[in-house]
Amino acid sequence: MGVRGKTPTLANAGDARMPELLHNAQVATLEGPDYGLVRDAAVAVDAGRIAWVGPAADVPAAFAGWARRDLQGRLVTPAFIDCHTHIVFGGSRAREFEMRLQGASYEEIARAGGGILSTVAATREASEAGLLAAALPRVDAFLTEGVTTIEVKSGYGLDVEAELKMLRAARRIASERPVRVRTTFLGAHACPPEFAGRPDDYLAEVCLPALDAAHEEGLVDAVDGFCEGIAFSPEQIARVFDRARELGLPVKLHAEQLSHQGGTALAARYGALSADHVEYATEEDAAAMAASGTVAVLLPGAYYTLHETQAPPIAAFRAHGVKMALATDCNPGTSPMTSLLLAMNMGCTLFRLTPEEALRGVTEHAARALGLSDCGRIAVGLRADLAVWDVAEPAELAWRIGFNPLRERIFGGVA
Amino acid sequence: MGVRGKTPTLANAGDARMPELLHNAQVATLEGPDYGLVRDAAVAVDAGRIAWVGPAADVPAAFAGWARRDLQGRLVTPAFIDCHTHIVFGGSRAREFEMRLQGASYEEIARAGGGILSTVAATREASEAGLLAAALPRVDAFLTEGVTTIEVKSGYGLDVEAELKMLRAARRIASERPVRVRTTFLGAHACPPEFAGRPDDYLAEVCLPALDAAHEEGLVDAVDGFCEGIAFSPEQIARVFDRARELGLPVKLHAEQLSHQGGTALAARYGALSADHVEYATEEDAAAMAASGTVAVLLPGAYYTLHETQAPPIAAFRAHGVKMALATDCNPGTSPMTSLLLAMNMGCTLFRLTPEEALRGVTEHAARALGLSDCGRIAVGLRADLAVWDVAEPAELAWRIGFNPLRERIFGGVA
Ligand SMILES: [Zn+2]
Ligand SMILES: [Zn+2]
Repeated sequence: MGVRGKTPTLANAGDARMPELLHNAQVATLEGPDYGLVRDAAVAVDAGRIAWVGPAADVPAAFAGWARRDLQGRLVTPAFIDCHTHIVFGGSRAREFEMRLQGASYEEIARAGGGILSTVAATREASEAGLLAAALPRVDAFLTEGVTTIEVKSGYGLDVEAELKMLRAARRIASERPVRVRTTFLGAHACPPEFAGRPDDYLAEVCLPALDAAHEEGLVDAVDGFCEGIAFSPEQIARVFDRARELGLPVKLHAEQLSHQGGTALAARYGALSADHVEYATEEDAAAMAASGTVAVLLPGAYYTLHETQAPPIAAFRAHGVKMALATDCNPGTSPMTSLLLAMNMGCTLFRLTPEEALRGVTEHAARALGLSDCGRIAVGLRADLAVWDVAEPAELAWRIGFNPLRERIFGGVA
Repeated sequence: MGVRGKTPTLANAGDARMPELLHNAQVATLEGPDYGLVRDAAVAVDAGRIAWVGPAADVPAAFAGWARRDLQGRLVTPAFIDCHTHIVFGGSRAREFEMRLQGASYEEIARAGGGILSTVAATREASEAGLLAAALPRVDAFLTEGVTTIEVKSGYGLDVEAELKMLRAARRIASERPVRVRTTFLGAHACPPEFAGRPDDYLAEVCLPALDAAHEEGLVDAVDGFCEGIAFSPEQIARVFDRARELGLPVKLHAEQLSHQGGTALAARYGALSADHVEYATEEDAAAMAASGTVAVLLPGAYYTLHETQAPPIAAFRAHGVKMALATDCNPGTSPMTSLLLAMNMGCTLFRLTPEEALRGVTEHAARALGLSDCGRIAVGLRADLAVWDVAEPAELAWRIGFNPLRERIFGGVA
């Protein structure tokens, strides 16, 4: 990736692991309304955590002797969190994309090996190292936009070994790059060809044993499924969720993306961290999600790519106080997208989120969708995961399309 | 812009102004069908021009002694050309974007100084140096994606001095950055407040004198207008085009964006280089454009931002052999977009172009939309304006969303 892979840093960054006072900044703390914005602010960082944040005029004397760094009026936000990706996968679907636009029928594409099963085949064929190497340029694209936490799902292996291989590759991202990775087991993503027409057998013979094995190996932070007419029913998903509960793992669900199947209500009953896509969720679903504290993860990249016309029920989510996160859904089929800034613009343009909702969607609420309480806002005691932007005001982050104003990414206090 | 502003180069690039043979490349020459792709190709570059291109096996003995550079199997395309931008402007419209999403009415936004007239006010207020400085980060974003030619329009000054100031700032981009700039006079963009309700007076007293003055100063490569119910009628545009004809300047037109006004037919009658937007163009318009050799410049960023639903008549353009270009329309109101790669993806996703049409749209046909015959393809005698990509096949450029696989940009033979 050459130059593009590097994260820009301020020339005078020094050794950011030493206690440091960032000053002359606008800070969008997300604590309180209107971005929790403090116009002339300072942030004290020590041992990778936020030690203090507030108006520059109020900096306590205790921090007076700390190294100071002038951010020249730039905007500081919490670092970005992508809470829904399938960034580890084998192969490419560019040729399928092209065939479809050249007018090929679905049969022709299937005969040429297209669709999700082509990704399954390429993922099974790839080595763990090969999966990792293919994912890193995509990870680098995230890092250049100020991302410090990425969720990664399995679900293209669909046999025990290939699911484990995907999760191991995902975990290794965090040793190759300065980023936090949360792994999600998604064995219930699709039914592989060798179990065609026998989804219950697939769940019993592959998915649940793979979950057990992955958990045994410490590879699972959460358990996910794809509840859809073309995938698994709520009853089938419930079997997976029951096992997750036995293992003490939190759950989340791809729900109501293409039709209303009842997945969101199921997720809420299981106290899911999130229900994702949710274009076809109802007012009742929104009420259930609010009651269970389930985050709605909105994925406008897939909506855009699939030419969907039914946007998620934003008004109902607002009315019921459902937290909304935004993510890329980075995957080779329905959302080959590696930009959270673009997901913010799409959230505003396609779903009519406000720029503030979009920013909270890739920080505060994305953290919540992953069950993380130590990041996503700028408050004392939280991780010093910060992004410094060359913009005059927070709304610019969502307004621009295909432009990256990141100046500096700070990960656990380290620039 | 720090690190991001730099264009990545191969480590062994050397002094690219010396004669050089690029080899071990896939080259999308765009000469002939299927991208004009030569799989194991070489390109000889001398004095900023293509000296030879073809299969590696056929390299003539004359180039045997030249310095060789191994591109490691990467894809080479013509460098990108953005043939429609408003990249020079004052101010920002992020706050207006935010107000609209917060539910503000058009009156409230207008009262807060929003809309195109806010950009006119900010542009009038800015100095030439200020306009240039504000444009450069946007230009840098283009360069990181392999752009070597950018068209820039005036049209936010709307008085003689401010129009000249915009064009001078646009021209200065080419001395600040390694890029070619084509300037387009767009005095007939909107009617300024001091001429409200008197568009004919504005044309006579400001627009035509500004065109004369700008041409006198050598600042005009082409003349454009905005033909729309909310802007100027075909009859009014014809007055501007008549003056352009007297001055010997080619014309182009913003036409049929929001409704059918007859601008495309007018443009064709004047032998326009391009008709731009053209969502509401008809089959008859397509036939007229084909006859006059007028390029259809498609602007999916504006279509996306404005939630339009009528796509341009791609099938009619194909049937009549109208060349289609793709551009960002980079502007602060309806398309704050700085990524031609994203315009390619949007062209495919929203307008159903093929990836090959998208690539030709930002190279070969974009050159034609600017009246340039020395770039946009890879052929002997043309400028050595090239882009080297880390992709396995050309379709990847359009398939991915928000990802930049550029490895190297070569401008007039210089890496
Ligand atoms: Zn997904
Ligand atoms: Zn325009």
